Amino acid sequence: MLLTVIGCWGAYPNKGEGTSAYLIQHEGFNLLLECGSACLSLLPEYLPPEKLNGLVLSHYHSDHIADLGCLQYVFRVNTELDIITDPLPVYGPGSGEGFQKLTYCDYTKGIELVPGTPRQLGPLVCHSIFNSHGEPCLAIKIISNAGTPAERTLVYSGDTGWDSGLVSFCRGADVLLCESSLYNKFEGMLSGHLTAGQAGKLAEESGIKTLVLTHFPHYGRIDDLKKEAESVFTGRTMMARSGLKIEI
Amino acid sequence: MLLTVIGCWGAYPNKGEGTSAYLIQHEGFNLLLECGSACLSLLPEYLPPEKLNGLVLSHYHSDHIADLGCLQYVFRVNTELDIITDPLPVYGPGSGEGFQKLTYCDYTKGIELVPGTPRQLGPLVCHSIFNSHGEPCLAIKIISNAGTPAERTLVYSGDTGWDSGLVSFCRGADVLLCESSLYNKFEGMLSGHLTAGQAGKLAEESGIKTLVLTHFPHYGRIDDLKKEAESVFTGRTMMARSGLKIEI
Repeated sequence: MLLTVIGCWGAYPNKGEGTSAYLIQHEGFNLLLECGSACLSLLPEYLPPEKLNGLVLSHYHSDHIADLGCLQYVFRVNTELDIITDPLPVYGPGSGEGFQKLTYCDYTKGIELVPGTPRQLGPLVCHSIFNSHGEPCLAIKIISNAGTPAERTLVYSGDTGWDSGLVSFCRGADVLLCESSLYNKFEGMLSGHLTAGQAGKLAEESGIKTLVLTHFPHYGRIDDLKKEAESVFTGRTMMARSGLKIEI
Repeated sequence: MLLTVIGCWGAYPNKGEGTSAYLIQHEGFNLLLECGSACLSLLPEYLPPEKLNGLVLSHYHSDHIADLGCLQYVFRVNTELDIITDPLPVYGPGSGEGFQKLTYCDYTKGIELVPGTPRQLGPLVCHSIFNSHGEPCLAIKIISNAGTPAERTLVYSGDTGWDSGLVSFCRGADVLLCESSLYNKFEGMLSGHLTAGQAGKLAEESGIKTLVLTHFPHYGRIDDLKKEAESVFTGRTMMARSGLKIEI
């Protein structure tokens, strides 16, 4: 499967960029993971938004769902123009007001992701567990060619603080797309987020092959995050950036 | 005062562009009018978002507020980094859940815009009236150098269907920034929005000098909107586009 980074900033975007949004494509199936700020402005570089087959959300903070309402308008307008016929399935944790907003008339349909219960999304299999973010938030595992010799696995951390349950969830994944909102010196000062060193520790303890850091802060030099992760993780560490493509 | 178009699409943005967002600057005061999709990705081309002194919203549909939550994070992060000290005042109609979300801890403060009651926003004066959009939505008038020979007036229609009350509200404005979501042939087929011909009629009947069409649809050839407005309006008609600056 092909992972394309659409947006990689936490909280709000830098100029010309976006907050959390990732495109996952496999066998003609187009899955959007998170729908942050500027997602719909940046996505058409890679895919017309009406060609999406599904959207998965880890939680309902603004930097992960800013463009959800406008994506719902994409499906409304393109349905009214007879360009598309099917509603967009939108998967997320089944809690409260955030979940209620996933369904928009007949244009998008909210579907609960139940931790521990796998879901088939086109040719992909999706697993999830709750992580540690203060409000209900999911870590997401996406598997292509499940059960075959060609099986490949991407794990996305969601927004989370250190959570030992993530180690077994990530075990053996090919790629871990992991938030690193904090420099090591701020460990413990902002709950519900990982330092780069903790992201490296998670990658090392779960034996993943490639760590992709994302969800960057707006202070300091973000290249230092890579150094901090690399001081713990012995595999390959990459920094997310708009347009980064990884064949998994 | 200087008007800069940040985003001009209705519903959702085109590639690399944004939905409704306009920057109004006068005597060092920076006012954002609407905060649509991709606003925070595009705005830094003209102004760092933490330099905003106020935000005015006409209503709470997604294509006008998509980036509000992330703008609230801008003010949170920059306050925590000691870069700014004052909360961002956010003005909008005082109705329901939408208004409640304008206040975010001590970082942004929601303030009701009461139609018929002028508000001083830094060196600018803001008037508003309800228009005709189905849900409470405001047309906004911004005046610089009020009561002096240098007085200048911008009126923004908000999202609205034809509403004769707008004619007197717009009367004599220098610039009318007016939604034109519809081609003339669709008049009456989508309530709460204007055709380009109706935008031209509003401009002509209220005697404004310059009409700027905005809030464009995602079908047809939008240059036709200009022709339809010009067939009614005898003043100057312009099409909004990202980065368009108009000194008023």
